[in-house]
This record gives sequence, structure tokens and C-alpha cells, in this order.
Amino acid sequence: MTPLQSYIAGRWIGQQPAQALRSAIDGSVVAHTHAEAIDFAEALAYARSVGLPALAKTDFQQRAAMLKALAKYLGERKEELYALSFHTGATRADGWVDIEGGSGTLFAYASMAKELPQSGNLWPEGPQIPLGKTGAYAGTHVLVPRGGVAVHINAFNFPVWGLLEKFGPTFLAGMPCIGKPASATSFLTEKLVRLINDAAILPEGALQLVIGGTGDLLDRVQEQDVVTFTGSADTAAKLRSTPNLVRRSIPFNAEADSLNCAVLAPDVTPDDEEFDLFVKEVAREMTQKAGQKCTAIRRALVPADRIDAVAARLKERLAKTTVGDPRLDSVRMGALASQAQQADVAERVTTLRQGAEVVFGGGEGFAPVGDGIAEGAYFQPTLLLAQDAAHHAAHDVEAFGPVSTLMAYQGLDEALALAARGKGSLAGTLVTKDAATAVKAITAMAATHGRLQVLDRAAAPESTGHGSALPYLKHGGPGRAGGGEELGGLRAVKHLMQRAAVQGSPAMLAAVTGEGAA
Amino acid sequence: MTPLQSYIAGRWIGQQPAQALRSAIDGSVVAHTHAEAIDFAEALAYARSVGLPALAKTDFQQRAAMLKALAKYLGERKEELYALSFHTGATRADGWVDIEGGSGTLFAYASMAKELPQSGNLWPEGPQIPLGKTGAYAGTHVLVPRGGVAVHINAFNFPVWGLLEKFGPTFLAGMPCIGKPASATSFLTEKLVRLINDAAILPEGALQLVIGGTGDLLDRVQEQDVVTFTGSADTAAKLRSTPNLVRRSIPFNAEADSLNCAVLAPDVTPDDEEFDLFVKEVAREMTQKAGQKCTAIRRALVPADRIDAVAARLKERLAKTTVGDPRLDSVRMGALASQAQQADVAERVTTLRQGAEVVFGGGEGFAPVGDGIAEGAYFQPTLLLAQDAAHHAAHDVEAFGPVSTLMAYQGLDEALALAARGKGSLAGTLVTKDAATAVKAITAMAATHGRLQVLDRAAAPESTGHGSALPYLKHGGPGRAGGGEELGGLRAVKHLMQRAAVQGSPAMLAAVTGEGAA
Repeated sequence: MTPLQSYIAGRWIGQQPAQALRSAIDGSVVAHTHAEAIDFAEALAYARSVGLPALAKTDFQQRAAMLKALAKYLGERKEELYALSFHTGATRADGWVDIEGGSGTLFAYASMAKELPQSGNLWPEGPQIPLGKTGAYAGTHVLVPRGGVAVHINAFNFPVWGLLEKFGPTFLAGMPCIGKPASATSFLTEKLVRLINDAAILPEGALQLVIGGTGDLLDRVQEQDVVTFTGSADTAAKLRSTPNLVRRSIPFNAEADSLNCAVLAPDVTPDDEEFDLFVKEVAREMTQKAGQKCTAIRRALVPADRIDAVAARLKERLAKTTVGDPRLDSVRMGALASQAQQADVAERVTTLRQGAEVVFGGGEGFAPVGDGIAEGAYFQPTLLLAQDAAHHAAHDVEAFGPVSTLMAYQGLDEALALAARGKGSLAGTLVTKDAATAVKAITAMAATHGRLQVLDRAAAPESTGHGSALPYLKHGGPGRAGGGEELGGLRAVKHLMQRAAVQGSPAMLAAVTGEGAA
Repeated sequence: MTPLQSYIAGRWIGQQPAQALRSAIDGSVVAHTHAEAIDFAEALAYARSVGLPALAKTDFQQRAAMLKALAKYLGERKEELYALSFHTGATRADGWVDIEGGSGTLFAYASMAKELPQSGNLWPEGPQIPLGKTGAYAGTHVLVPRGGVAVHINAFNFPVWGLLEKFGPTFLAGMPCIGKPASATSFLTEKLVRLINDAAILPEGALQLVIGGTGDLLDRVQEQDVVTFTGSADTAAKLRSTPNLVRRSIPFNAEADSLNCAVLAPDVTPDDEEFDLFVKEVAREMTQKAGQKCTAIRRALVPADRIDAVAARLKERLAKTTVGDPRLDSVRMGALASQAQQADVAERVTTLRQGAEVVFGGGEGFAPVGDGIAEGAYFQPTLLLAQDAAHHAAHDVEAFGPVSTLMAYQGLDEALALAARGKGSLAGTLVTKDAATAVKAITAMAATHGRLQVLDRAAAPESTGHGSALPYLKHGGPGRAGGGEELGGLRAVKHLMQRAAVQGSPAMLAAVTGEGAA
């Protein structure tokens, strides 16, 4: 069987199989990585000598039009992606987030181009600032393509969206891209890149794909390149310290799993609609993509006198969640991405169970539905309850699966202190009816969070959910979450371009920024 | 003699002298660092327990008013700073850049507060973005104080401006600051901080001063803190790799010396005014602060057929530059900051002389003016000329003193390729009369530069000069320049705050951002 192939320097590479990649559904072999080593010097040289000149011949508007066409094309071929997506353990609904979320992000970035210059690749930022008394001299800022290559290293949980949410802004910014998905689910990303190639919309050299390891790629990048990483904090730290990146000050943007929280505010009683909204949000975040989201709620903070009521309702809801073969219509939660993940999550749960009671799960009597799935990577949704919230491991240990811990607090101040114990999170949700509570809590939580949701009955009908990264809103949190910043509308494009201040006579500045004749 | 003292946790620390700091003028001992170790755990705890709450009681406008009052106070006491500044080797004109440039930056940041919220410490960024079809749910962004401490590690060349240009935006952003100047010229920074304390304008804990080494300070900072560094690329790389910074994703902003260039465009002939503007700019950048600026012109790129004419006029100009005791009115260029710098620059010049001819300088017959200055750290302005620009060391080796290399090019494309050989620069200047040349060159150079100047006869009367970092314009370049970003108006304040996306009902968002009643 031909292995998955890398797409490097305009050709597909790989004939000899290496690592076997198994279906999360039943453990059967879906694909292999390839054994042939990639010549990363060639990949970078190709991006520079073919991709950069090809992109330089396009402008923002032309690239936006290509993104739109590509999004449309992928939408038409989405069933080919869904068919493989099941083998990552994803249900159809999970796959929607990854696959249609991915093409939706391309559409969004295409539409943002209406705020970009109508021609060329120089993006003026801000007005001319006079720097003297007579008006002879002024300054302004511009953004231009960096003239380098973007290396995007992605996590296993979003094999489609993960590449596209980075590729969209990168392409708009005029940078060629080398994408490296996590091996476990790289069969889906490889399919995506084959579709993109079939579409023949992008300029040659705009996108290369690495199946397998990054080899010496990070030792070869240069000053004008950028590297991004989504994955574990440990790997982020290791990559960030790569001597070549450090020595050349190469931007390194990291997005790491974080110990996100949801807070049920003190004003919400069990009779309020908001009480059920909280329960639903926690349950959804536990089970969507089997809890394999960097943004999922790992800590649910609840007033001590309401924690039993929350536990009871959550238990009831989780008990109704059918787990099993994600291809079955009856199934609400599929499998983890691999048996390795299954073992890892089990080990973390063992740690988290210390000092906590098991409200739901724990594995006993767990029977996922489906035929021939004994070797699948299923994991029972597991809800823990820690009465001594201040001293529980859930502030430090992440089980990257359908696992969450209820934590009791006394008063909003304690809740906010516990929220900050995540030491930097991607996302947080506050469920409250009270605007004053929202003002106080959001102002405090914003210092340690990348994105925050205030959830109440008014917002609920259209809420996009705690865990969903959105193209127009910042994705990325400080500290443990990696300190990176992605998406956020055109902010992401700016992060991938180079800002320069320009000084001179107003006439020269107008000529450079294209805002007037010289 | 009492040594210089650190200001930590509300008290001045240090009774025992350690390292002797010598006057750049004559080598006499000006001060000592102190021998007592600083308890950095105490310094950080004080910033968190005293500084943060004190700052949280102020809003943007109150802090801006304090910055303005402080700038005014320092302006009134500036002669006390000038008196010490001479011993760093600076002339009065050099001192102006450092001392009045420093208080001017505080004034500028105070005035920028008119664009900040009129009360509170939450800064809304951008409009509400609808996230659904009925208008029930929307998103926006806010900036809030990070709730941590800023550690600013500075270079020896700007003992006053270096601290103040970082302190201004940091204070406005609501962060307590721990400043650590380079030891060689820390006697001037210590005086500055004594004046600031005498002024009694700032809240307690807003500013602490470290004289001497940083000890275990960087091992103790946390997720909400930030670290900035200005100095050599080697030290930047070392600090950036500090395991504690990497593991906690602590923002590290670096500003490193870079191999900046000025380009005389092909359209400028020896008869044009611009020809002399180029010569003046190169000469000024060589001699201002004895060339000890991260932004100074190290590579002057000149059309091959005009390089002899440029060399001749520069030689003439440099020959008229009186070097010596910076206290003398006749002196135009003072000393390097220390004998250590003198030795370092001499060594680098030896390297740069390989493959270059000496147009001016080289040390023979060099006689700085002044009495009793034999032990001073003087260095003769040294202009080299490299005919084989593509293969000369000036693209890689920096002599951090009054040293520049003329490099010949053929055609604008070659000039732009040579400019990029700096691998990331803080500043660049293009001297041209031709708008089309400016458009082409600035667009290309912007990819590798933080700030660019187009200099012509129209701009010249008010030009602030190639090397001057300005509060309203970005300071910082990619790659070799450290990849950091400072100043640039309120951009600097944003970089020191935490951005969070906020989602919810329009009413809740309005309550949080203070832009309407809930």
C-alpha cells in the first residue's frame, strides 16, 4: 500500500511505508507515514525561489479571491474529507467543526480583504504623523510581506481546520507555507492538501506538506521566516528553545492546551435558565470531539452550595450521551484520536481522581456502541468533583479527553482567584445574569485569558460556544496557553507581516503608501 | 565612599562597594556598584503586593498626569543629570538625546492618553462584531493590565532614555517596573531614579532599580510578567532561552544592535543637495554618541561611480570633527563609554579592515583634546571603504563606535540586496530625489527594517535623523535586530497589556466595555 505522501517542491514524495496510523474507530490500519527523508533545504529553497515570486505577483485582493474559490471548492468536496474524518474518532458534528470550520475560516479571511488595499502588497497603517513644526517631515507605518516562509506545526485534533486557520491569514499576508500536521491524523490533512492541489487555484509553491517529523527544518529557517506551533506546552517549550530560532529572533507563535474554566456566578440559582445553560455548556465541552480541544472546559467552578445540584444535572446529561462508532447516527461522542491518547488520558485521570470524587464515569460498565470496535480509542466521559478546590491537581494536570472537574468556591473573589490558577488559558466562560458581576469578573479574567464568553439567556440562542475559536476573534492565551495570538480578524494577517515606520516628506510618504501623488 | 544603591522594596540597598565604574573622560573612578546581593523574590513580591494594588487604584488618565508631572520635574532638574552624563563620554548634545529625549518620551506618552479611556483600566479595542443572525450574540476585544511586573534590562548607551522610554508605556499600561541598567553607566540611571523618588509623584512600588547583576530574577518571573532587553544579540539570545521564560511563555522583547544601512540612490549626483545630505547623515551617525547607537549607520551603500566622491567629502567632514573631553565647548565627539568598549571596538575594526581601505581614521596621529584625559575611552572616527561589498565583513561584524563602512554597488537592485544582508535592522535611510525609487526601495527594505527614512531636500529641514527613535514611531527590527517592537505610539502600551476577546449579548458587552448601560 502506498503510504501517505509529503508534497515538497512541487511533487509528492514517499513510496515506502513507515509508521502505521490506525483508525480511532476500530484500530485498523488506515495509512502509513512514508519512510523517505524529506530534504528540508529543498523545501525551503522551493518556497523562496518559486512560492515567494509567485505570491509577489498577486495582490491582497487576488489572494482573497483565491481563498474564496478554494473554500468553495473544498465545500463541494467535503464528503471526501468526512469519510476519512470518522477515522480520527470524530462524529459528523465533530467533523463539521474541523472541515466546514476550516473552509469557513478561508471564506472569512477572503471577506476581510475588503478592508485591505485594493492593489499591491503594501498595507498602510495609520495616518501621517507630523514630526516637525512646518509640515516638511512626517512619519507613518506600513506593513509588507516578510519575504520569508511560514512553517506551521499542528496538533492532531484539528487536521483540517488546524492547517486552514493558519494558511488563510498566511496566504493573505503573502507568505508561502509549509504545513506539518501531527502524524496520528495526518491521513486527513494529506487528503485536504490533495484536494487543494486538484483545485489548482493556488500559485505553485504557496503550500507544501510534511508527513512525518520536521527533521532539521527548524535548524534551517531564517530571519524573515516565522514558525507556529499548536500542541502541548512541553513541545512548545522545546521548539521555542531551538537555537536557530533564538539566535535569529524568528517569531515563534505557540498555542498550547490550557486548563480553561467555566464559572457559574453566585447570582445564578438552580431555577434560572442560566443554570441549565452552564450544565449544557460543560457537558458539550466535555463531549464535543471527545473533549480533545485546547479550549475545552477542564475546570467548572461552582458556588459550594450549588455544586451538588450541578453535579446531579451533569450526571444525568452525561448518562444520556451515547458513545461509540462515530459513523452511527445514534452516537453523540466518538473516540479519542488514538490508543496512545487513550492511555495518556487514563493516566491523567488517575492523578485527577486523587482528592476528587467521581460523579460520572471512571470506566466501570462503559460499553461504547458499534460493531467490531474493541480496539477503538473510546473513553468514557468522566466528571470529577473536588471539594477542596484550592489544592486540587486540576489546576495543573490536563487530561486531553472527555474529562472535567467540578470545583467548589465561596464567593466571586475566590472564583476569580481559582480561574487565575490556570496560569494562562485560551478560553473562559462566565455564566451570569448580572451585568455588575460580568464587569468585575471579565475585567479580572481578561488578564489571564485569550477569549471570554459571558453566557446568559439573552446570548444563548446564538452563542457559538465556549470552545469555538472564531476567525474574527483572537485565539490564543498567555502563559500556559503558549502566549500566542492567532485569528482575531486581520490581526492575524498583521502578525504575519512586517511593520515598518517610514519617515520623510509628506509627498514621499504619500508616494510610498500609495495614498497620493508624489 | 558609599556605592551606588539599588532601590528595592521601598528602600535603598548597598553600603559595600564592589565593581569600580570609571569616567569615560579620564578613567577616574566615578562610582562603585554595591556588593550586597539583592533579594529578587522580595523585589517581585513588593511589586506584586504594593505596586500592583497602588497602580490598580489609578486609571489611564491619572497615570498620564503623573507622567507629565514627572517629565516636568525631570526637566527642571536636568542639570544634575548632565553633570554625570559627561562621565559616560557624552557631549552636551549627546546628553540631550538621552536626558531630554527621555523626559520628552514621558511627555509624549502622557499626551497620548487623550486616546485612552477617560476612566478605568479596561481599554476597548474595536467595535462589536455580530456573531449571529438575530443580533443576540456578538464579540469584541478588550485590553487590560496584565497583572504582572515588567523587568526592563537596558544597555549602557542610553542610561536615562533607555529606562524612561520603557517606563513610560509600562506605567501607562498599569504595570510595576523593575529597571536594570547596564553597570558601566548605571551611576547616571541611579541619579535618575533618585530624582524620580525625590519627586514623590509615582505610587510606591511602581519603579524599582537594580544596580549590578540580575541574579535569579529571570528564574522568578511568572506568567503575567514581561521581560525586555536592549543590548547585544548574543546576550539577547542567552536571556531569551532562560528556561523559566520559555516554560511560562513569558513575553521577551529584544532590541539588539544591528548593521543598519544608508543608501545613496542612483539618481543622486554630486551636484545635488541630497548628495551632501547623505554625507552629513553618515558623518552625524558616526560621531553622535561616538557611534554608540543601536541604530547608527554601519554600512553606507553608494553607487560605485560616486563612492570616491562620497569618500572625499566624508573624509573632509570627519577631519573637522574635534574629538575629546565632552565637557569642552569645542568638542563635537566625546568618548566611548568605557575602556572595555574601546578595546572591543578596536578589535572589530581590525576585522573590518580586512578587504577594506581606511578612508579616515585608523588611529594614527589621533590626539583627542583636553587635559588629563590619557586614560579616557576615546576612539578616532574610522571610515572604511569596501569595493567588494558582497564579500565584506561589515554585513556581519559590528564595531559599536564611530565606525562605518562605505560599500560600492551597481544599480538599485544590488543596493537592496546588500541592505537585506543586515539580516534585520532597526533603521535604514534612503537618500533620493525620485519618488519611484523611494516606492521600490522602501517597499523592499520594509521587510527587513523596523524604521526607514526617505531623505531629500524637502524633508531635510525638519528631519529628526536616521538614528533617532521617536515615541510615535515603531522602534525595533526583525532578525538580528532582536525581533522586538517598542514605542510606535500607543502600540507600545498595547504590547504591555493583555488582549482578550469577549463574547456575549450586546448588552453584556456594552456593560463590560463601559460603552453603554447593560
